[in-house]
Amino acid sequence: MRRALPSAFLELHIEQGPRLAEAGAALGVVTSIVGVARGQLVVEGHAGHAGTTPMATRDDALVKAAELVLRIRDAARSIDGAVATVGQLEIEPGAANVIPSRVTVEVDARAPDSERCRRLVDMLGLEPTYRSAPAQLAPELQALLREEIESRGLPVVELASGAGHDAGILAAAGVPSAMLFVRSLSGGVSHSPDEHSSEEDVALAVEVLTAALRSLTSR
Amino acid sequence: MRRALPSAFLELHIEQGPRLAEAGAALGVVTSIVGVARGQLVVEGHAGHAGTTPMATRDDALVKAAELVLRIRDAARSIDGAVATVGQLEIEPGAANVIPSRVTVEVDARAPDSERCRRLVDMLGLEPTYRSAPAQLAPELQALLREEIESRGLPVVELASGAGHDAGILAAAGVPSAMLFVRSLSGGVSHSPDEHSSEEDVALAVEVLTAALRSLTSR
Repeated sequence: MRRALPSAFLELHIEQGPRLAEAGAALGVVTSIVGVARGQLVVEGHAGHAGTTPMATRDDALVKAAELVLRIRDAARSIDGAVATVGQLEIEPGAANVIPSRVTVEVDARAPDSERCRRLVDMLGLEPTYRSAPAQLAPELQALLREEIESRGLPVVELASGAGHDAGILAAAGVPSAMLFVRSLSGGVSHSPDEHSSEEDVALAVEVLTAALRSLTSR
Repeated sequence: MRRALPSAFLELHIEQGPRLAEAGAALGVVTSIVGVARGQLVVEGHAGHAGTTPMATRDDALVKAAELVLRIRDAARSIDGAVATVGQLEIEPGAANVIPSRVTVEVDARAPDSERCRRLVDMLGLEPTYRSAPAQLAPELQALLREEIESRGLPVVELASGAGHDAGILAAAGVPSAMLFVRSLSGGVSHSPDEHSSEEDVALAVEVLTAALRSLTSR
C-alpha cells in the first residue's frame, strides 16, 4: 500500500555552523542542502631507511600526501560555497624510521548544487564511494518563511545547509520542502552537551514556524 | 672488574643505502656515524563539522601539519648531509566528516656532526625524546682501509653512515674505530629477504678487511 505524500514539509533545525551568528541574525532560510561526495585518494611512494636514504633520492608518499592535502583545500576554496575536508590519513608502513611508501587520504567534499559538486569532484580526481545529491528547497515555501521573518522586523539571511537533513530526503521524493535555521551560539557545535542557542531565538523560530504552518493550512 | 678496551675496532657492514651503487663502487670507507634526534611536534587547530564550517573560517590542524611536513623536508634539504623523516601522524579525532583538531607529527632527524645536528633540531623546533650523538671514526684507521682499497685498483668512496652501528658505540667509548661498507644491490634494503650484495663484492670486502687487520696486528 502506497501512502499519499504530504503536500508540504517544513523543518526547523539549529544551524550546525557559525554563519547566522556571524551575520547577527536569529533565523535563516535554507535555500538548498549540499551534495556530498566521499572517497579515498591513494598516494604511492617508495619505502626507505630514514637514516640512509638521502633527501635528493627520496620518493616519500607522506610528502606527496601533504601537498595533496593543500591542493584539496585550494580546490574547495576556488568554488563558491564548496568545502572539502581530509579527516584521516592511513600511512604505511607507519614507523618512525621508515619513509612512508603509501598514504590513503580520506576526502569529504560538498557543494550546494550538482554543477559545483561535479566540478569539485573532477578537480580532486575523486571516485566517490558515497554520494548524496544536492536538494533544492521549494521557492514558494522559502518565500513564505522570508515573509514571516521580515514581518517581525528581523533580518533575512539565506544560506545553504552543509549537513544533510530530512527536508533533503523529502525534497528528493518530490515533496515541496523548506527549512528554518536557528542561530547557534556554540559556533555550530551540535549533538553535544556544548550545543547552545538562546531561548529568545528558539521562541522566535517557533513563532515563525507556527505562523508559516497556519498560513499554509489556511490556503 | 673493568676490562681493558681493545686498541682498535674494525667493522664490516652492508651499506643500508644506495650511494655506493650509484657511485659504481664495491666498497666504501665510513667517515662518521650520524647523530639521531627523535621526537614529536604537536599541531593544534579547532574541530568542526566537515559540511557546515566554511573554508574561510576553518582552523584545520591537518592542513597546518601538511605545511609542517613540507617545512621539515625543506629544513633537512638546506643542511648538507642531513635527513629528516615524518613516518607517522596521529590525527584527532580522525573521523571522515570532522575537521582535525590536533595532529602529532613523529620526526626522525639525522646529521653527520654535532653542529649540523644542533642546527637541524633548532630549525625544526624539536625537543628530542631520543638522541644519539654523532661519532667521528678514527682518521688513521680510515687511511688504512683507503690504502688497502686503492692498492687493489678500486675507487675509494668515503661516506657518512646514516644508520647506527657498533663502531659508533665503541668510538664514543674511546676506542679508535672504523667501518667498511659493501655495496647494496637492493637499494639499501636490509634486514629483509630482499637484502642483496654480490658474492664478488663481499669477497673483496673480506679481502680488504683481512689485509687491514693483518697490517694492524703486525705494527
